[in-house]
Amino acid sequence: MSALRQFTSESVTEGHPDKICDQVSDAILDALLTVDPTARVAVETLVTTGLVHVAGEVSTEGYVEIPAIVRNRITSIGYDSSDVWFDGRSCGVSVSIGGQSPDIAQGVDDAFETRERASLDELDRQGAGDQGIMFGYAVRETPELMPVPIWVAHRLAERLAEVRKQGELDYLRPDGKTQVTVGYEGQVARTIETVVLSTQHSPKVSTEQLRAEVEELVIRPTLDRVELARPDLRVLINPTGRFEIGGPQGDAGLTGRKIIIDTYGGASRHGGGAFSGKDPSKVDRSAAYAMRWVAKNAVAAGLADRLELQVAYAIGAAAPVGLYVETFGTGHLPEERITEAIREVFDLRPAAIIRDLDLLRPIYANTATYGHFGRELPDFTWERLDRVDDLRSAAGL
Amino acid sequence: MSALRQFTSESVTEGHPDKICDQVSDAILDALLTVDPTARVAVETLVTTGLVHVAGEVSTEGYVEIPAIVRNRITSIGYDSSDVWFDGRSCGVSVSIGGQSPDIAQGVDDAFETRERASLDELDRQGAGDQGIMFGYAVRETPELMPVPIWVAHRLAERLAEVRKQGELDYLRPDGKTQVTVGYEGQVARTIETVVLSTQHSPKVSTEQLRAEVEELVIRPTLDRVELARPDLRVLINPTGRFEIGGPQGDAGLTGRKIIIDTYGGASRHGGGAFSGKDPSKVDRSAAYAMRWVAKNAVAAGLADRLELQVAYAIGAAAPVGLYVETFGTGHLPEERITEAIREVFDLRPAAIIRDLDLLRPIYANTATYGHFGRELPDFTWERLDRVDDLRSAAGL
Ligand SMILES: C[S@@+](CC[C@H](N)C(=O)[O-])C[C@H]1O[C@@H](n2cnc3c(N)ncnc32)[C@H](O)[C@@H]1O
Ligand SMILES: C[S@@+](CC[C@H](N)C(=O)[O-])C[C@H]1O[C@@H](n2cnc3c(N)ncnc32)[C@H](O)[C@@H]1O
Repeated sequence: MSALRQFTSESVTEGHPDKICDQVSDAILDALLTVDPTARVAVETLVTTGLVHVAGEVSTEGYVEIPAIVRNRITSIGYDSSDVWFDGRSCGVSVSIGGQSPDIAQGVDDAFETRERASLDELDRQGAGDQGIMFGYAVRETPELMPVPIWVAHRLAERLAEVRKQGELDYLRPDGKTQVTVGYEGQVARTIETVVLSTQHSPKVSTEQLRAEVEELVIRPTLDRVELARPDLRVLINPTGRFEIGGPQGDAGLTGRKIIIDTYGGASRHGGGAFSGKDPSKVDRSAAYAMRWVAKNAVAAGLADRLELQVAYAIGAAAPVGLYVETFGTGHLPEERITEAIREVFDLRPAAIIRDLDLLRPIYANTATYGHFGRELPDFTWERLDRVDDLRSAAGL
Repeated sequence: MSALRQFTSESVTEGHPDKICDQVSDAILDALLTVDPTARVAVETLVTTGLVHVAGEVSTEGYVEIPAIVRNRITSIGYDSSDVWFDGRSCGVSVSIGGQSPDIAQGVDDAFETRERASLDELDRQGAGDQGIMFGYAVRETPELMPVPIWVAHRLAERLAEVRKQGELDYLRPDGKTQVTVGYEGQVARTIETVVLSTQHSPKVSTEQLRAEVEELVIRPTLDRVELARPDLRVLINPTGRFEIGGPQGDAGLTGRKIIIDTYGGASRHGGGAFSGKDPSKVDRSAAYAMRWVAKNAVAAGLADRLELQVAYAIGAAAPVGLYVETFGTGHLPEERITEAIREVFDLRPAAIIRDLDLLRPIYANTATYGHFGRELPDFTWERLDRVDDLRSAAGL
């Protein structure tokens, strides 16, 4: 064992059962936001052998054909035949959806501030869709300011799906998991110590062939993308030996059960709220996106090299009830000064977050795989470095 | 706003929809372990208006009547009438359970070490039931070495259920949430800044009466249990104004969606794995329990005042693939020495954890509410301080 401290993160491919559910929930959300940007949506999905169950609360004037969205998403992942143990064309789909509770809706539509404190500020009108705590994180470990273990784990999972979908390794099947252990010296990532990768496969391939080809086509080229030494690299591919049965047949899946993979791979703390299937009036999603935005801009602005933030809300109230900044000794200013600068530059009321990050658009299906953070895509507004100058001047830099 | 840094944690009562699911999953697990301690169990639950869906993978020779267990658990929480918006006696219960995947089972029953490395060590035979990362945490903030925000949030939720069940506030209904914001000076908890509490209620009570009585009977006596000043305490009770509709009618619930509440309230990092419904061959549960045990013993032994651990596994392999110790500057020894002492005293292979913590018993239903950690009950073996002397001598103290 190396003397370095070993920190591990994991990811999964789009064929993992929990991730199927996240994608189905977000595909339904996007369809609803397309027909009605003001839709209130909370959609949970459960998948098990031969069956998809969609449940939750939706309030909208629009109409979408949920079973068709479900089947389309599942077949596009690659579950289109009983040979791969799940067939989106013929599986059972049951839908139990009701309207948003009117008691919750009135707290969101007419917040505590306007209802009980007579505020006239328009941004005070929208209350948080739930109580809860959300974290944001950024660190100088990759160009996107993400922790390197989750970055590598995601890139391995993406590449595994790519060689399957492009037919390079045509015996691969949709379900898969990756895991990366990185050696740290103090707070600095130095080495890749261990990679674990499991992938579903057809009965025709031998374990030896699969291991050799996955190592060559998936693991090596991905590890070459990061500048970390690997003097004692250990690679474990399909350590169970067999992984023919996969997807919902091997493991029941649920929406919101990959929340650490969705965020920072365990490098940051987490408030517990899930993202997929939730419209941005739910602060679990919108405030976590905002916290990433704040943390990334703060690190890019040079306030700290590693920064974690926590915010907290009360249901039906607009203003946050708590804010916490942690810089792990990497701050270039005292944490109080950083907190003040953040408060000055960012408005963390739900309506302001939705406005500033332009969240009432059908942009969510794409977030549901390979990480909500650290992918600098045009629709991922929370990855934009558009508050760096404001933060620097607020902090007096 | 106070100059202190504000850290927030939340909890929920046993009537919260996600928590209903955790309790149902663990009640089924306990019933199975009672008839067959070697049962392999992974049971997920979804609740929505009028309906409970149980799905997952179970391998056992035993037989249990799942719908009866479900109904019994739900009515004992207090959902026994359409007046409270859910009735465990008459709701729909659908069950879709298959056997554990034989591909996974063979990796668990005959680990990589014995299968591919010819190990003869009996404790090497059981492979981890999944890959993954798990954290453990302990801190000198309460006598049980728990972070104080989650401790208070749980005690508020427990007390809220108590005044309902004992009839002191007979207009309360099962669903509820609590949230506590604590002011920290550096790493030291100083004040209680804000409490948020939402509770389901009957239509007969006024918001004013409910707020006054919950403040007096639930919040004050609970806050009096901790020695934290509250110079600027803010209390928000039912900030939406109304909360008559609750439980699965207001919000669909799923197993494993309160993983931060189940652990350290966000004060520690989290690996993402859920606990409820999983037998201890699943390291998501058993290794997270072991990590709490290790961290608590290490803090009690004086190795650090605040200690966080991470461990990682490969599916189908017995030995962990990573271990990480963090003491946040509170260590009384270098982190490398602490890590060595932990490796010397604790055997973290799944079979050893199950043996040392005596986990093959029906002890889980009770874990599913008000926190898996920090409750020093006889069956919570992971809370025992039985390795303090071993750790001190391994560390040379
Ligand atoms: C191991 S399963 C979780 C445990 C499962 N519910 C059970 O009852 O055994 C978690 C994930 O591991 C992956 N998996 C399934 N079968 C596998 C196998 N034979 N080898 C390796 N990984 C597998 C899939 O991605 C699956 O969703
Ligand atoms: C607000 S709901 C989550 C959002 C919901 N799925 C929706 O679509 O609006 C989360 C939790 O809040 C609590 N809750 C439900 N109704 C509430 C109300 N009217 N006021 C405050 N809390 C409520 C319940 O514990 C519920 O499980």
